[in-house]
Amino acid sequence: MTASGTPVTSASDMAEPADTVRVPVALGERSYDILIGRGVLGEAGALIARRIPGCRAAIVTDSTVGRHHLETLESSLAEAGIDCSAIVVSPGEGSKNFATFEQVVDAVIAGRFERGDAIVALGGGVVGDLAGFVAGVVRRGMHFVQIPTSLLAQVDSSVGGKTGINVSHGKNLVGVFHQPDLVLADTGVLDTLSERHFRAGYAEVVKYGLINDADFFVWLEENWRDVFAGGPARTHAIATSCRSKAAIVARDERESGERALLNLGHTFGHALEAATGYGDRLVHGEAISIGMVLAHDFSVRMNLASKDDADRVRAHFAGVGLPTTLAEIPGDLPDADGLMTLISQDKKVSRGSLTFILTHGIGKAFIAKDVVPDAVRDFLAEAKAAGART
Amino acid sequence: MTASGTPVTSASDMAEPADTVRVPVALGERSYDILIGRGVLGEAGALIARRIPGCRAAIVTDSTVGRHHLETLESSLAEAGIDCSAIVVSPGEGSKNFATFEQVVDAVIAGRFERGDAIVALGGGVVGDLAGFVAGVVRRGMHFVQIPTSLLAQVDSSVGGKTGINVSHGKNLVGVFHQPDLVLADTGVLDTLSERHFRAGYAEVVKYGLINDADFFVWLEENWRDVFAGGPARTHAIATSCRSKAAIVARDERESGERALLNLGHTFGHALEAATGYGDRLVHGEAISIGMVLAHDFSVRMNLASKDDADRVRAHFAGVGLPTTLAEIPGDLPDADGLMTLISQDKKVSRGSLTFILTHGIGKAFIAKDVVPDAVRDFLAEAKAAGART
Repeated sequence: MTASGTPVTSASDMAEPADTVRVPVALGERSYDILIGRGVLGEAGALIARRIPGCRAAIVTDSTVGRHHLETLESSLAEAGIDCSAIVVSPGEGSKNFATFEQVVDAVIAGRFERGDAIVALGGGVVGDLAGFVAGVVRRGMHFVQIPTSLLAQVDSSVGGKTGINVSHGKNLVGVFHQPDLVLADTGVLDTLSERHFRAGYAEVVKYGLINDADFFVWLEENWRDVFAGGPARTHAIATSCRSKAAIVARDERESGERALLNLGHTFGHALEAATGYGDRLVHGEAISIGMVLAHDFSVRMNLASKDDADRVRAHFAGVGLPTTLAEIPGDLPDADGLMTLISQDKKVSRGSLTFILTHGIGKAFIAKDVVPDAVRDFLAEAKAAGART
Repeated sequence: MTASGTPVTSASDMAEPADTVRVPVALGERSYDILIGRGVLGEAGALIARRIPGCRAAIVTDSTVGRHHLETLESSLAEAGIDCSAIVVSPGEGSKNFATFEQVVDAVIAGRFERGDAIVALGGGVVGDLAGFVAGVVRRGMHFVQIPTSLLAQVDSSVGGKTGINVSHGKNLVGVFHQPDLVLADTGVLDTLSERHFRAGYAEVVKYGLINDADFFVWLEENWRDVFAGGPARTHAIATSCRSKAAIVARDERESGERALLNLGHTFGHALEAATGYGDRLVHGEAISIGMVLAHDFSVRMNLASKDDADRVRAHFAGVGLPTTLAEIPGDLPDADGLMTLISQDKKVSRGSLTFILTHGIGKAFIAKDVVPDAVRDFLAEAKAAGART
């Protein structure tokens, strides 16, 4: 029997379509590759068969993504001799709940999938987080393959092994770390995304520049239109993002330190998502676009970063059409105290003190512990007032 | 913030009551100690405070165990300055289900317990498996302390990091590996167990002799009455069992090989538990008592072990009052084909072939892959027929 999660073939003997970029994630015996390029979805069967010989596959997808891409995946698996069945959930964040989790778990077990078989997540972040959690707990861990179909999932949620569901108290509060065996990011499937959702995912791409790669931020300022258009610039942006995240995750798999940098903009962002009901009013990428602008503005307020840098960040997000202010969020928002309550409910709270990702400037983010809650509250009150005045 | 699962103090600077036996479990950065002795429950607060400084504690227990021991634990935690609250579930295997799992998860999150806090399981195997799974998934992993209150839990389920719940298709099919930070086995609390449940737990003690320690089996043949009576023999038997399991787990944490030896008697046993509804008709220890006898008899049938050894195993189990034959199970059982279906649903199935733990004799268990299902079926048919004749 093959132990769950153990690489079966070495990373170097896999084949992939030409022009595919391979980003290795170095996690010892849990190491794996991310393959990025146009057309990798059509090669999924052969790639999975090489990585996890003899496996069967339980595909988890949602009805929207399934309509576009399930047939391609199933054909590819069939060609490679991989027996599979599909479990289709409803699209949207609502599926990251206990009821759907239990349904998918039951379906996998009813399908007699074993530890040596694979859960294949075909979809965006919701499907990936849900399916990964299922893969992490059925028979205490099955193989797991991510085929992210949104830009957000390709550059963020499909890399790094975080899985989970939401509970009434907040997002992603229940889950496990369960690394995939393989990630296949087909840049072509992003052509089926709406402009709004592509843009939202792009906010996470910019994040990698802002965390620790000022050159990449400059490159994005100059080339973002090509990233949106598709082609080699898109592949480059996704590969650079994955490489950046992979390096951070490799150094701190379980988020005991540096990995928290990936939360740049997320403490503010999660509070805004909670305030707007995690729905169409404000999608995740839009929330963290505003959140990253707020993180830079707050860093300026704390005399940590220059106003020029913060303005440049705001200008780039605004330039691509992402929201950058609280005033752009449709509908009412809680007041500053209400937002602070949401912030303190966020999981990155340690012993009651606030931990924020702040910055010394573009590409110079850092983890600030013991941020004084009152300073954040006053800053948010002003940000809200500024919105009310416009 | 302290990463979940990271030892905060080294094992060697903990204090414990005199006459306590310490069994280290060597799992690298997930290493921990099992402390075994009369009275360790009363020292739980100080021991936990040393191991996980500054933690709060969410106690998970059942109403029966809680009635006997919750007050002692709460007092000890309070004395050590550990803020705690208790989550009480119904006693019995029925609590290892999705609904109770979700309730406990929600209660822990509602109580604002963070990654640096601890879930403390006070109870038998059900509570430990359930609470451990909760600790493994809330905020993707919290600290975890096991205080097993049954003999079964002290020598088996509290050691090794397996956690989980049952689903309609079978036991323990959903869960995670999540090692505790500390295990406190108070041999005194076993005085409140019924004779039947102590005896059932004793079957797991005997298992360690049968797997790879013939001398321990001989010692048990000679000293089992003292183990039942309490005192130093009981502590010795529990410590020997834990040491044996710890050594196996240390060599194979995720059960990719040797750890499967711990399933001696369990493939038959689980099928019998499933056939009898996981209830009072046949408790786990009784099922594996019969299962271990069957495993030895089947090994004799396969010309692997001597009939003398198998008879000696049967004699010891029967001598302490444990069941050793299918005929002793009250009520009807499925026929051999029905039992085979239950066996093939057990999770230790790999690619459709049957893996059994068989033996070359007392202390000489081994993993037999590709056991021919028909041979098992015929053996079970005869075992059933033998029961019908008596």
